[in-house]
Amino acid sequence: MTQPLSPVLSRIDQDLPQALERLSDLLRIPSISTDPAYKPDVERAADWLVAELASLGFDARKDATTGHPMVVAHGGATDGPHLLFYGHYDVQPVDPLDLWNTPPFEPRLEDTPKGPVIRARGASDDKGQLMTFIEACRAWLAVHGSLPVKLTFFLEGEEESGSPSLVPYMTAHQDALKADIALICDTGLFDAETPGITTMLRGLLGEEITIHGPARDLHSGSFGGAAMNPARVLARILAGLHDDEGRITLPGFYDDVPEISDALRAQWDGLGFDASAFLGRVGLSVPAGEAGRSALEMIWARPTCEINGMISGYTGAGFKTVLPAQASAKVSFRLVGAQDPHKIRAAFRDYVRAHIPADCRVEFGDHGASPASVMETSHPAFEAARTALSDEWPKPAAFVGAGGSIPIAGYFKTILGMDSMLIGFAKDDDQIHSPNEKYDLDSFHRGIRSWARVIEAVSKT
Amino acid sequence: MTQPLSPVLSRIDQDLPQALERLSDLLRIPSISTDPAYKPDVERAADWLVAELASLGFDARKDATTGHPMVVAHGGATDGPHLLFYGHYDVQPVDPLDLWNTPPFEPRLEDTPKGPVIRARGASDDKGQLMTFIEACRAWLAVHGSLPVKLTFFLEGEEESGSPSLVPYMTAHQDALKADIALICDTGLFDAETPGITTMLRGLLGEEITIHGPARDLHSGSFGGAAMNPARVLARILAGLHDDEGRITLPGFYDDVPEISDALRAQWDGLGFDASAFLGRVGLSVPAGEAGRSALEMIWARPTCEINGMISGYTGAGFKTVLPAQASAKVSFRLVGAQDPHKIRAAFRDYVRAHIPADCRVEFGDHGASPASVMETSHPAFEAARTALSDEWPKPAAFVGAGGSIPIAGYFKTILGMDSMLIGFAKDDDQIHSPNEKYDLDSFHRGIRSWARVIEAVSKT
Repeated sequence: MTQPLSPVLSRIDQDLPQALERLSDLLRIPSISTDPAYKPDVERAADWLVAELASLGFDARKDATTGHPMVVAHGGATDGPHLLFYGHYDVQPVDPLDLWNTPPFEPRLEDTPKGPVIRARGASDDKGQLMTFIEACRAWLAVHGSLPVKLTFFLEGEEESGSPSLVPYMTAHQDALKADIALICDTGLFDAETPGITTMLRGLLGEEITIHGPARDLHSGSFGGAAMNPARVLARILAGLHDDEGRITLPGFYDDVPEISDALRAQWDGLGFDASAFLGRVGLSVPAGEAGRSALEMIWARPTCEINGMISGYTGAGFKTVLPAQASAKVSFRLVGAQDPHKIRAAFRDYVRAHIPADCRVEFGDHGASPASVMETSHPAFEAARTALSDEWPKPAAFVGAGGSIPIAGYFKTILGMDSMLIGFAKDDDQIHSPNEKYDLDSFHRGIRSWARVIEAVSKT
Repeated sequence: MTQPLSPVLSRIDQDLPQALERLSDLLRIPSISTDPAYKPDVERAADWLVAELASLGFDARKDATTGHPMVVAHGGATDGPHLLFYGHYDVQPVDPLDLWNTPPFEPRLEDTPKGPVIRARGASDDKGQLMTFIEACRAWLAVHGSLPVKLTFFLEGEEESGSPSLVPYMTAHQDALKADIALICDTGLFDAETPGITTMLRGLLGEEITIHGPARDLHSGSFGGAAMNPARVLARILAGLHDDEGRITLPGFYDDVPEISDALRAQWDGLGFDASAFLGRVGLSVPAGEAGRSALEMIWARPTCEINGMISGYTGAGFKTVLPAQASAKVSFRLVGAQDPHKIRAAFRDYVRAHIPADCRVEFGDHGASPASVMETSHPAFEAARTALSDEWPKPAAFVGAGGSIPIAGYFKTILGMDSMLIGFAKDDDQIHSPNEKYDLDSFHRGIRSWARVIEAVSKT
């Protein structure tokens, strides 16, 4: 039985004021997960979602964890593709409160020079985004009485506080969560007119090194020249991590780094990425990184090594002629393709150890390791979704990369064996995690329509 | 008229108990110069010294400054060599007071496994030391009724608080202070049995560099690989300051660095300096610095470049994937021979600027510059004093270097055109600037005898 899309889209357009009312109801709940004072509110947001999903006919429940609850719901078609939808209903703290122009938990529709926006904490990250999917399901059900795909909802309340319950919960509930493919709505548009499906997420390896030298800080007059300075040792180690071409020098580092395909490169070239504007926003003008690689390729498809912090000796005002007893740095690697974080960690530590001179010793700190996520875009759902998004937005959708790490996509792969399609409608200027967070009404409206289209397109694969 | 030395030395031995009483009187005055609460006590110490010197027949006065007063006194022979003696009568603060085993301003004679010591704040730095000279003069005057040299005393009350009045006072009173040579008693013995005359003091150049990159701290996922990281730029700059042999790479850096003479090297070799013990006390074992140079040569006669501090990005607990907006370091150079600090500063800044990539800029901070002091040991007073000291102590005296900077010696040279003989009797374990400061009775006793010998020896040059 064919369920036409067009009346669903019309329904979405007509119902937009009511959809905004529902989103506002959710935004009024201050579900700040990191602050224990708001625990009852986080529970209330979970209850609200359970009720909402149950009212649409889903078998919805709130599952307790040692932290905040998971909201899980099942429903939709009994056969055809099975999609799992992920979003999170918790929000970031709001401080500094005095920088907000309106109260963060009193959502309002505001006109701005760029168009109307919904202003509230969580409007973009992630309540507005997760509601785009729920509203798409609502419209589909209102028009056709049923959905063309099997659906599982998996909504988390700890995303903004490190997701401590996520892996244990997923591991314990694999049967309830397993689907054909996951949809994650927690990312952004490529630009205001161009949606993207994030198919490459860089992995992350965090390391800390502390180089110990003399037993205590020394007077640089009494000992300078005769005693090894750990800050100098650290500087040499850090400086040696890149060659003059900006490539990382660790042996074997690039072994498992794939070149992107010609097809993907063509898509990316088509995006018209403006490296000057991207860098210009943060006061820069020249793409750094490996010689001969574009800025877009560098952040989406190439591994990096960055010094995230370093400290040694006296760093206050004025001057102190101290020869420091120790020097430390936090170093992270963004990983791509099949790079094994444990292999990279071993190579890094071997390199550091090989550069520790007599009278110094090194101490390592482990700040986590996750591999890159590279989706199997050969799954037909990917092309179907890309076409569906291209139909909704002014410019065609592209498979894009993401420089940062989104751990949930990796967990879906490793724990549940599912690829993820990360589709989101946030904009760079949404001020997530900051005062005056907003979500464009256009993101919300086209977002709902986008999901209606994606559901239809994927149902036919 | 010859004035024999031997009765002067005997007199010193007999008068030691009384000399200790006088020192104790001075030590009871809490002349802490850095704390305004003790300003009346600093005045009182100056008055005490004026009275003491006047009682010995010197024309002594207290000269007001904008800070604490200078004590200046004139006397001695009307012809022959003219010596200026410098010491300081102010002391360091005493906190943490609870770490003192006895009250810091209640001096007492204590027996220790290494012999008797005088325990009090200022016992070694510098009241005990300056009293060695005054007591030597007293004995000479008691035995012979006159001194064999012309003498000027110049006693400062601001040495422990940065000597703000010193240069203005010296500049304004050049005629009153000018002498043939200065004696400075504020340094230590080479070891318990070996005195030294410090004839080489390293200069100091302090620089701070801050490298600015992006306009704000960036997310290392979103920007890592595309944006220049100032911490990486800083690490390369710092790492490039030394070559693999430990030599400093700045062009022209070693142009004005002399090799020490064979005679001086022979003296130093004769000191039996134990590099292992020296480094072992601070948890090190291998002399660092230029390949092929001894630890003693490195700290006394070679220039250095040390990183005194550096900071960038996130340095707290845990991890933050930040790409820092800036990175900074404090770097100092110890200078020797005729190295011009301004030329070295220019070479350093040129080197840094040449390594600043596009999109970064560097800001420099100036933390002072002073050249090395190298005394003209060809002046006969130096050999005379060395012989005199060798007669007093178990092992022969040597001309030694000092790794740190002692600004007063430089000022005597530049403002008054005098070389200085830095002769002192402190020991490494005197705990100056720390709780439980002490001065060995042996330092005090032999110190007085040493000055009596030096006065006699110099009078004959």
